[in-house]
This record gives sequence, C-alpha cells and structure tokens, in this order.
Amino acid sequence: MAEQRLQGRRILVTQSDDFMGPVLCEVLAEHGATLLADRQALLDPAQPAALVAAAGRVDILIANLAVPRLRTPAPDVSEREWRDTFAALVDPLPRLCRAVLPQMIERQSGKIIVMGSASALRGMSEATTYSAARGAQLAYAQTLGVEMAPHRVQVNAIAQNFVDNPTYFPPALQADPRFQERLRREVPLGRLVGAREDAEFVAYLCSEAANCFVGQVFPLCGGWVTR
Amino acid sequence: MAEQRLQGRRILVTQSDDFMGPVLCEVLAEHGATLLADRQALLDPAQPAALVAAAGRVDILIANLAVPRLRTPAPDVSEREWRDTFAALVDPLPRLCRAVLPQMIERQSGKIIVMGSASALRGMSEATTYSAARGAQLAYAQTLGVEMAPHRVQVNAIAQNFVDNPTYFPPALQADPRFQERLRREVPLGRLVGAREDAEFVAYLCSEAANCFVGQVFPLCGGWVTR
Amino acid sequence: MAEQRLQGRRILVTQSDDFMGPVLCEVLAEHGATLLADRQALLDPAQPAALVAAAGRVDILIANLAVPRLRTPAPDVSEREWRDTFAALVDPLPRLCRAVLPQMIERQSGKIIVMGSASALRGMSEATTYSAARGAQLAYAQTLGVEMAPHRVQVNAIAQNFVDNPTYFPPALQADPRFQERLRREVPLGRLVGAREDAEFVAYLCSEAANCFVGQVFPLCGGWVTR
Amino acid sequence: MAEQRLQGRRILVTQSDDFMGPVLCEVLAEHGATLLADRQALLDPAQPAALVAAAGRVDILIANLAVPRLRTPAPDVSEREWRDTFAALVDPLPRLCRAVLPQMIERQSGKIIVMGSASALRGMSEATTYSAARGAQLAYAQTLGVEMAPHRVQVNAIAQNFVDNPTYFPPALQADPRFQERLRREVPLGRLVGAREDAEFVAYLCSEAANCFVGQVFPLCGGWVTR
Repeated sequence: MAEQRLQGRRILVTQSDDFMGPVLCEVLAEHGATLLADRQALLDPAQPAALVAAAGRVDILIANLAVPRLRTPAPDVSEREWRDTFAALVDPLPRLCRAVLPQMIERQSGKIIVMGSASALRGMSEATTYSAARGAQLAYAQTLGVEMAPHRVQVNAIAQNFVDNPTYFPPALQADPRFQERLRREVPLGRLVGAREDAEFVAYLCSEAANCFVGQVFPLCGGWVTR
Repeated sequence: MAEQRLQGRRILVTQSDDFMGPVLCEVLAEHGATLLADRQALLDPAQPAALVAAAGRVDILIANLAVPRLRTPAPDVSEREWRDTFAALVDPLPRLCRAVLPQMIERQSGKIIVMGSASALRGMSEATTYSAARGAQLAYAQTLGVEMAPHRVQVNAIAQNFVDNPTYFPPALQADPRFQERLRREVPLGRLVGAREDAEFVAYLCSEAANCFVGQVFPLCGGWVTR
Repeated sequence: MAEQRLQGRRILVTQSDDFMGPVLCEVLAEHGATLLADRQALLDPAQPAALVAAAGRVDILIANLAVPRLRTPAPDVSEREWRDTFAALVDPLPRLCRAVLPQMIERQSGKIIVMGSASALRGMSEATTYSAARGAQLAYAQTLGVEMAPHRVQVNAIAQNFVDNPTYFPPALQADPRFQERLRREVPLGRLVGAREDAEFVAYLCSEAANCFVGQVFPLCGGWVTR
Repeated sequence: MAEQRLQGRRILVTQSDDFMGPVLCEVLAEHGATLLADRQALLDPAQPAALVAAAGRVDILIANLAVPRLRTPAPDVSEREWRDTFAALVDPLPRLCRAVLPQMIERQSGKIIVMGSASALRGMSEATTYSAARGAQLAYAQTLGVEMAPHRVQVNAIAQNFVDNPTYFPPALQADPRFQERLRREVPLGRLVGAREDAEFVAYLCSEAANCFVGQVFPLCGGWVTR
C-alpha cells in the first residue's frame, strides 16, 4: 500500500477521462487524496469558474488538458485546427487559475500542476499547432510560478512525451514495429515511460515535501529531452 | 557602410512601426535588402494571405508582432486581455507561415525569423498572458524549424528582453533610477541591449552564412537568460 | 513515519559529513535504506575502488562531493585552486562509476545520483573554478545516463543552489541581512530550500517509481534556474 | 570579398592546426583580422602565459582546444584518458584567461570565445570523458561571462556538433553510409554544418556588433540541440 502522504488533500483533476486523467486519479487516491475529478473538456469560458465553485476547497489543481493526436504539415494547418487546439489546451488555463488562485492565496497554500508536453521543448515534424499550444502552457506555468511563490502557492509543469497513455500512444501505435524501432533509437530509456511512473512523479510534486519547486518545467520523456 | 550581404533579398517585416520594426527596416536596408514593410497589426485572419500575395516573392519573413506592455496580476487577467494578446502575437503566425511557406518550399530556399521574447524562458511577475503568448511563438518556431529544414527553409526565433525599443522600454522607464538599478542587478550586461545590436544579429541570421541554424531559439537579453 | 519504500536498498553516500551528506543519510534511512556512508574526501585515485569493494552490493551510489566555499576573481585563480577543486569534485566521479558500474550492469539494476550545482547552469561572479568543475559533473551524469539506460541503470544529477547546508550556506551567512535581501530578490522561492526537501527529492529519485528518469539534470534551487 | 569588419583586431587562435583552427584563421583573416595563430597543444602549465606575452595586444582570444576523437565505454575509461583529456581541453582555459584578462580589463575591451561542444548539452554513448571536459568549458565560459561583463569583456561559447572538421568528422566517417543515415535521422539540418558556416558565426561574434552577448552558450549543431 502506498504511503498516505496526500491524506486529506483535495485534488481537482480536469478532463479526467483523457490523457493522464485516469491514472492520476487512481494513483493520487492510493496516496490518500480526495479526488475531485471532472470529465468535461473545458471549452466553454464559464466552465472553469463553475467547476471550482462546485468543488469547494481545492488544495491542488492538476490541469490535465488534451486534444486528440494531430499530425498536420505546417502549410496545411487550418484556422479551425489552431483555434480548437488553443481553445482546449490553452484558454482554460487562465480561467482555471483565475477561479482557484484566490482561495489558495487566501490560505497561503496550494499547488497547480500543468500536465504539459516536451513537444514544446524539442521540435518534431507536423506538430506545429500542438507544440505551440503546449509552449504557451509551459511558459504560463513558469511565469505564474514566479508570481505565486511569495503566496506559498507552487505552480509547476510536467513536459512529458513517450509516456504510455491512450490519447497519444494508443495500443495500435505501440504495437507497430516501426514505432518500437523509433523508441529504441530516439528515446534513451528505450521504452515508454509507464503511466504510473508519470503519476507517481505528480504524486511526489503534490506532497508537502515538494514545496521547494516553483515555476519549474520537468521533462518526463525517457531522456528525449533532459533540460 | 555596411556590407551588402543582403543585396537582392526581399524581406517582409510585419507590424513595422512597432517593437523592433523600425530598426530592423533601417539596418536590413543598410545591408542591401529590399524591405517589404507592413505596418498593420495583423488581427484579421485574412490579412496575412493578402499581405503575402501583395508582396510577391518573399525571401525572408520577419514575424515582428507586438502588443503594448502589460502588467496584470494573474488572478486579474481578463478574457479580453488573453484573447487580444493571443490574437495579436500568436494567431498571425500560422497564417503568415501558411501564406509564405509554399513559395519558399517551391524554391527550396527561404527564412522565417520570429521576434520573440525571453519572458517565455524565465518567469517574471504579472506577465502570465504575455509570457504564455510568447511561449507559443517560441515553440512554434522551434518545431516548424525542424519540419522545414529538409526544404532548406530555415526557421528560428529570437528570445529577447532588455533590448532598447519604445514598445517595452519607453524613455520614461529607462530614465527611472529604480529601473537602472534593476538593470545593474538583474542583467549581467549592465545596460539595455542596443536596438541596432539586436537588428545586426537578425541581419546575420538573414544572411546565407547562417543557413546552418534551424529551429533554434536565440536568447538576446544581455545574459538575463543564456540558454 | 516515512514510507519504507527504500527498504533493503543499499545506498552508498560519499563524503557523508559534508554538503548534503548528513541529511541524505538521515532521510534515506528513514525511508528504510541501508546506508553505506563514507566520510572521506576521495582525493586518492585508489580510494573509490577500495570503497566500493568494501561496500559489497551497492544498489544506489550518491556522489556527494564538495569543497569549501570559494570566491576568487577569475584572473586570480591559482593552479592550486583549480587542481584541488577538480581533484575533489570531478576526478572521483569516473573512479566511483568505474568501480560500481560493473555490478550494476551485471544485475541490470542500479542508480547513480550526482549531487551537483546549478552554478553550472547560470553564471555568477567569482565562481569560475567551482562552476567549471560542477559543469563537468552535470555533463558527465547526463551522458553517462544515456549510455547506461539500456542496462537499466539510471544516472541523474541534481543541480542545486540556495539549499540549506553548512558547507555553502553557513549560519553566519544566513543571518546576514544582505544575504536575506539577496534571497528575496534573486530566488523566486524567497527562502532557502530546506535540507530535508532536497533529501526527500533524492529519496524519490532513489525509489523504483523514478526508474523512468535517465541522464537528466534536475534544477533544485528555489526557481533560481528552472530548466 | 568579405566585409572588413574585423580590420585591426588582433585575434589569438589556439591549437590552430586542429579542430576549427584552420578555417577560423582563414575566415577571420578574410574579415580583416590580424591572426595570432598558435599551433601548440597547451599541455604545459607555463605555455599560455608565454604565448600571451609573446602575442602582445590580444583583442580577442579564441580558445580552440581539441583532442582526438574518443569512444570509450564508461566502465573502461582509464585514469590516463581522463587526465589527458582534461589537461588538453580544460586546464588551459583558466591559464589562458589569467594571462589575457588583465590587458582586456585594463582596456575595458576584449572578447573570449570558447570553441566548445554540444556533447555537453545532450548525452551520447561512450563519450563520458569528452562530454565532462566540454561541460567544464561551457560552465566556465558562462560564469566568466557574467563576471567579465562589467569590464566590457565579452565571454561566450559555441556548443557545436555535426560541424565539418577533420578532427571529429574525418572524410572516412563522412563517407560511411551509416553515418549519412544517422545525420538524416538525428540532425534536423540533414547535413553537417559547414566549417565556414561555423567560422562565419565566430566572425560575427568577434565583431563589435555582438558586444551585447555575455556568458552565453550558442548551440551550433544543425538543430541537434536548440537551447
């Protein structure tokens, strides 16, 4: 049984059926947290405030936002793809933070963790829309982390890639020998990062032991990016 | 007189009255370039395509996009501020590239330089909206650079801060003794980077000598960020 | 009581009376680890092999190497300072790894954590010798991490600064109002990172849950460096 | 003919027959510089001071230090390999700077450029010794750059890889189809950076136009590392 170091912590996980949502809920609950899981894609500007109002006390917000996997050559990116991707990945962030920061600032305690992507740290082909949106997330977390540090609210981001999850690495892709060859060649770890490994790192970041990290971006991608 | 190493190069500079626009036009012209300067803020989705169509051959696109200086505490950021900032700094990027890339790919030659900000690389207080938008720019340039490299089109970005320009460091701010003290304390260079220094680096990047750089982000901020 | 997630792990901590040694031994023991603490400065080339031979099975090596705090203007750095610093901080690393890697490779299991410094990631005045030596450590860990990943041996480094420890932040320095002012100004966290916070992060890295990190450098410096 | 923007600048290039030495001498001379080329490997501690004394006024020092290509598995690295590599790549740096800085500080003008390696920024197999030594170089340049900035002496480093040079990419290697395949796969640029491209960037950094860069590390590796 996992240590109950998150006992009593109320953790809001957004878009909890997608991306890292399911494993985060499972692992954080094992650590004793009270999960406030919300399954909606937060496309409506009013949702985040309503969500936080309904949640009551939120000790930790995990901004887990995702869109389905995209691969579009840069010259073919449509207005719709760009707008929809930013609407799903970027625009909810300030709304969520606007909703949750006042109570955290008042308590002088709180954490926000953005589940971001290393695609914003290293270039890849046919991923401009996605990378740009993820880049906005990382820069937002980094700069909000500096601003919130004096309030004892810690904001950090994960920059992940090559982590086992059904949204970006579905079983069919994992079974493809060319993908396996690519993993061996491009990812020093030589395998996907396990979903639980990712979630256990988030659990560590959620703990009081990690109060020293502010405005930091943590690559979590099997060594594909290391800084 | 400057070397005419950009002789015959047709360079499109956007939003040419703002941010680094004026000095870029001046210095690049001194190097022999033919300047296609456009003064509009590119807020309308149709503008970039029209602009490129009117420009004809564009050897180099300099995406110089800016908004007035913002300082807003994160909990006070409005929907309007967020939307307007992304509309001005981020959304024009894929539209400009969609318009200009086909001719560059066809010629197997071209350059795009994004005039970005180091605020996306290091956190600052009360700058979440701006940093997030600039973060989208840097990640976009980085990933587009990888995708375009095989087409011999080089895409790179400047990540500047503490560069003399009227948009972000107006004379009144520069004259403020507290700002001068901050410069000495926070910026290893101990002074603002000169506008012409910035433009000369861009001129270098515009030259054929710099064809080896792709998908790279160049901090240009007096040592405030160095990687 | 801390979770016993390091139960049965034999962890060798070098130079255990200095730098992060004492708190590492304390916290890792609380997590159930069997500590193999060695107090020597490893200046003699033969010491690391002898140390590892005497230790027997080493599941995790923590390369905790330190020299007293130095502040020397670059033009005044002596041959002696340079040589002594590299002899203490850098040269023991390959010797320790040469001694401990064969058993780890044979078991296809093991971890090495280098307690390094963020002074190698961001410049500071009068610290050339120290920064250069710490830079060698980080690059060594990063590249060894890539090489060892296929053997299921994880090598990573901490790049710390502004962490409470008697070697670099002695009580007299901490009590100095100018230092406290500097902390508030330069370190987003606004305080020193606690020694136990640092050690708890190392404990996390020592756990099986962290097997996904290879060749990574983790800034741990209150936001002074974030990537 | 190249612009004579380095007219009258006295540039000392060390180990001028190796690594980037020959092309640097050629290109910098084309830009009008007076080359002070020294062919020795600077293994003797007394050489740098003698070299600088003989050179007289040195406006710019280019620390071009190299050892033959090494590939040694980490567990097999010998004391000799480690010592010889650091003796050639690392130890000459503080000696050169000790010798050349006083005259630069006195004139409140000067530049030092370290020809370093991106192998210190991204891990590779069987390159621990080399990467560690190059890591010391980059951290040294970065921190010296901060210290020297107030003296108007600019210190920066190139972090190169996949640049055409006979020391690390000899013709036989370049002709190997597996190497060509690796280039296409791992290096976004898809080709080696040309030796003259590298040297032209150094020429830019040597110019007065580049006085704004201090303590910076410039990746120059075809996009293999971009920050």
